[in-house]
Amino acid sequence: MRPYELTLTAAAHAIGDRELSPVELIDSVLERVAEVDSGLGAYALVTADRARAAAVRAEGEIAAGALRGPLHGVPYALKDLLDVAGLPTTASSRVRAGHRADTDSAVASRLAAAGGALVGKTHTHEFAYGLITPQTVNAVDPGRVAGGSSGGSAVAVASGTATFALGTDTGGSIRVSAALNGVVGLKPTHELVPRDGVVPLSWSLDHVGPITRTVADAALVLAALTGREYAPSAEIVGLRVGVPRNFYFEHVNPEVDSAVRAAIARLESLGARLVEVEVPMARYIQATQWGLMMSEASAYHERTLRTVPDLYTEDVRALLLAGEVLTAEDYLRAQRARTLMRQEWLRLLDTVDVVAAPSSALTAVPVGQKEVIWPDGTTESVPHAYARLSPPANITGLPALNVPVGHDSDGLPIGMQLIGGPYAEGVLLGVGLAYERL
Amino acid sequence: MRPYELTLTAAAHAIGDRELSPVELIDSVLERVAEVDSGLGAYALVTADRARAAAVRAEGEIAAGALRGPLHGVPYALKDLLDVAGLPTTASSRVRAGHRADTDSAVASRLAAAGGALVGKTHTHEFAYGLITPQTVNAVDPGRVAGGSSGGSAVAVASGTATFALGTDTGGSIRVSAALNGVVGLKPTHELVPRDGVVPLSWSLDHVGPITRTVADAALVLAALTGREYAPSAEIVGLRVGVPRNFYFEHVNPEVDSAVRAAIARLESLGARLVEVEVPMARYIQATQWGLMMSEASAYHERTLRTVPDLYTEDVRALLLAGEVLTAEDYLRAQRARTLMRQEWLRLLDTVDVVAAPSSALTAVPVGQKEVIWPDGTTESVPHAYARLSPPANITGLPALNVPVGHDSDGLPIGMQLIGGPYAEGVLLGVGLAYERL
Repeated sequence: MRPYELTLTAAAHAIGDRELSPVELIDSVLERVAEVDSGLGAYALVTADRARAAAVRAEGEIAAGALRGPLHGVPYALKDLLDVAGLPTTASSRVRAGHRADTDSAVASRLAAAGGALVGKTHTHEFAYGLITPQTVNAVDPGRVAGGSSGGSAVAVASGTATFALGTDTGGSIRVSAALNGVVGLKPTHELVPRDGVVPLSWSLDHVGPITRTVADAALVLAALTGREYAPSAEIVGLRVGVPRNFYFEHVNPEVDSAVRAAIARLESLGARLVEVEVPMARYIQATQWGLMMSEASAYHERTLRTVPDLYTEDVRALLLAGEVLTAEDYLRAQRARTLMRQEWLRLLDTVDVVAAPSSALTAVPVGQKEVIWPDGTTESVPHAYARLSPPANITGLPALNVPVGHDSDGLPIGMQLIGGPYAEGVLLGVGLAYERL
Repeated sequence: MRPYELTLTAAAHAIGDRELSPVELIDSVLERVAEVDSGLGAYALVTADRARAAAVRAEGEIAAGALRGPLHGVPYALKDLLDVAGLPTTASSRVRAGHRADTDSAVASRLAAAGGALVGKTHTHEFAYGLITPQTVNAVDPGRVAGGSSGGSAVAVASGTATFALGTDTGGSIRVSAALNGVVGLKPTHELVPRDGVVPLSWSLDHVGPITRTVADAALVLAALTGREYAPSAEIVGLRVGVPRNFYFEHVNPEVDSAVRAAIARLESLGARLVEVEVPMARYIQATQWGLMMSEASAYHERTLRTVPDLYTEDVRALLLAGEVLTAEDYLRAQRARTLMRQEWLRLLDTVDVVAAPSSALTAVPVGQKEVIWPDGTTESVPHAYARLSPPANITGLPALNVPVGHDSDGLPIGMQLIGGPYAEGVLLGVGLAYERL
């Protein structure tokens, strides 16, 4: 096994036990970048010198007995919406040409303090406004889409070019990217992880969170980002798992459906109690998410959309222009629906500990595929199908964890999302851990 | 002196000392209602039986030695936007025909607990969306407007038909109404006084507060509404009074200008230190206020504006329809401007204790007057002139107190507003008290 293949947990142990040097690890990761990233396109910018310097510094500190913690000397990647002082934050957009950040985003500064080695900035769907990330291809099958908008981060983690990464999730961007590449992705409770220094898509829906190879790894990154301890328990006997009878299993690829249901059955075999639940206000979910997201996104881009419209890619420009015609009433209606929806979800989460559902209705489609045809003959645009199951956790701000639960007949990864109550990250990680250990 | 003429403070002392019975007081007030209110039109509904019953009950309790506090047995009025269980809340609108409140608004319930006697519900400009209150005329000159939207409450207090009253203030409705009728009006810090059970105009700008004959009276009502003690000190030596060099004295009636400046000079003579200040972001004030207010008001009225548009008065319908074309971007731009404006005001209030300014650019105009011509030849609509100086305190949520500071050459009252930092009601009341005692 080459060092780049190690999970964060394994790498941290090896570094802590002096069996692996951070310099060996970063060299292995940078070699892997050289091997595969030109084909995958996960990185917008590789900061090799900086990464190696951080690894050398970490090695020195650790040799002197000053191990900072499990992230010390570990290579990681940041979605290119997150500011790092001295580097451009491109948001994978021509609109941001010439940008250079003066200061670190709050999360970059915390990871630096934890001693991590930044490998580089990863591609996002332009300004995080999409679920494809066209600059990047899938880590499992390069003829397939990476998913988005944290596609670069998910592909980096899945392909061995970063031991862990951060993404953002406004309408599924961590969970869908992670699901399509077979890695773990956590959208934490809203505002648990600070968003300072992160280019916004829609400030009331935006979340920053970790993308990792294992659930245990996600707990380590979350701890570094929040300063809290996460020691999730994989003991889930008696835990109540909500299984939605509506919304989450409608218009879902049959192989995704059966993989997620099989995963839920495994949780039951571990002692969890399954409870059928009704997803509240299901027919308002889409309008609420889009009413909030389109309004806030268009407000943020208002000036540049007027001054340099041609610098946006066509799909993002179309969304931003569409958002400009939403009325204040539309926005306020969405905010009021959000308030009610959150209340209903909190009530639902009085009756179960987590809700389990597919992270994405589809696995990774071939690059260029625009539509999906469902068994009942209806068609749906691919971006919409990818976006459809994510909004409840964004609208309500509830934490949601993607856990890989197998592959379809093309060998493409399938993800299950676990949604919990406010600040119940520890519960989600525990359930994920229990599943993962099977 | 007849009992209805007493200030709240004097009435409370007289009742506490058993020199005045609550029944005598309510009878005097109800007699005054019969004498003058058909001409003034302050009341939408007089609840004489209920008021007398409350006075009789108070009299019994006080005779038994159980004085609840300074409001016990004191007659008061509520703006007809505030729910009282069993009574209609008309908002002075045909849209609300047939309404009856099931429960008390939070403030009605607090005043009832304090032992007050509700005389009735007072007229508001329809749904509080205007600064005239056309059903009511000025307490000083019945050929002049009452001001609004708390016109009924201000006229009741000024004309002796209520010892005190509550109003609401979204864009000056307490301060302008009080100023035009020569009484005291306090718009407290946002959310200090609860708005449960109050028909909203614009929830992020709405405030409930007292209208009284003196500053000392306002302190008593605020204490009953908040459960906090207010014992304002009239000692203002060394207090820093900000005198705006821009915005507040622009396009202001010359008699208003000189009365307010004379009042400020009096504060200086009492030991206050005058500091010239710059009102921040002055050119964004109007757009911010209207962007927030029109959006939220139209969102609240969305359904009835579609189903029963003809039940609205023409001016309010026009405003609501205009609000429907505002975009989500307009609204979000206003919210962002508000955030910046609040930060700038908080910075300004690090340098002074209060800002002193006119409450209204005009005194009460003759009923029917639509426009005002300024000395520089420009014209302005009367509602706009009344609204213009109020928004900073609504946008920022800062407390603001109207204090009467004299009369113009027609004998019409002039008001000064004092604006302070968050929860600095005690400071404002102290400055008002110092002025009042001169």
